Amino acid sequence: MKTSLEDTLLAAIRTIPDYPKPGILFRDITTLLGNARAFRRAVDELVHPYAGTKIDKIAGIEARGFILGGAIAHQLSAGFIPIRKKGKLPHDTVRVAYSLEYGVDEMEMHKDAVKEGEKVILVDDLIATGGTAEGATRLLRQMGADIVAACFVIDLPDLGGRAKLEALGVEVRTLIAFSGH
Amino acid sequence: MKTSLEDTLLAAIRTIPDYPKPGILFRDITTLLGNARAFRRAVDELVHPYAGTKIDKIAGIEARGFILGGAIAHQLSAGFIPIRKKGKLPHDTVRVAYSLEYGVDEMEMHKDAVKEGEKVILVDDLIATGGTAEGATRLLRQMGADIVAACFVIDLPDLGGRAKLEALGVEVRTLIAFSGH
Repeated sequence: MKTSLEDTLLAAIRTIPDYPKPGILFRDITTLLGNARAFRRAVDELVHPYAGTKIDKIAGIEARGFILGGAIAHQLSAGFIPIRKKGKLPHDTVRVAYSLEYGVDEMEMHKDAVKEGEKVILVDDLIATGGTAEGATRLLRQMGADIVAACFVIDLPDLGGRAKLEALGVEVRTLIAFSGH
Repeated sequence: MKTSLEDTLLAAIRTIPDYPKPGILFRDITTLLGNARAFRRAVDELVHPYAGTKIDKIAGIEARGFILGGAIAHQLSAGFIPIRKKGKLPHDTVRVAYSLEYGVDEMEMHKDAVKEGEKVILVDDLIATGGTAEGATRLLRQMGADIVAACFVIDLPDLGGRAKLEALGVEVRTLIAFSGH
């Protein structure tokens, strides 16, 4: 049976058929973000298990992970780490290649964004194939971060991202799942 | 005399000389975002005057405005509106051209992101020439938004952005100012 939280979130997500290309059902989270109650519930529910834990930083993946990650950082009184597409950060960075559906791209994080042993939660809006989340995990661990969890509002489990992160020893927390892609 | 808040924020902002080109002092806010105390204080102080007001939505400008805007939306229990570079939003949009230092670009907002009469606060990390904030103001007003204020952590008043927004009748709130550019 669906919970009230799931109902709230499902009703707030817009599904756009054939975007960005034919056959894809795009899960548009902007309608959830724009719904004050759904946005607040999603943020509070994602971080609920970590409210009693000391979390040093939230790492958000550009760009939608910035919105949720900023809110979660504020809610947990943590700092925020932007993980950005290459060439966007102004200081010394570490860089990693990550897989996209077709080909690869690179993402970066400031070298001094995280200190050895700091407890970090990784945040994005959705986990699909897990390419970006895996890349972000590698960047954070390269600089010594202790990744407490990776949080996403939406899981597309058939695309394997959750399993990929769990195989790396990352605890994955999601709020709703859609079958297919 | 500087307040403690100003001291906290000034100490947390990194200045990078000659970035992105010679002669520019780049104010890097990522070190402030990464500092849990400075980030929390900046967010709380920006929204303090509006805590007793009903704010429907926070409009954040891609990309750094997403981080602060997400936190502010959560803090005020408001919805969040992403204002993005063109081609990034999946549904029907309104679009506006805005001035950059050299040339113009375009930004977009979903048409249904705001309803007539909704009270909105516009958020970005920094106001310089005000080109993006002016474009965002026009988009929001085109869809009927009542812009209660525009909030920025950093003001570069010599570049005229604050004056430009105020001339449009927008209340501007900033936390710290740097002379020059």
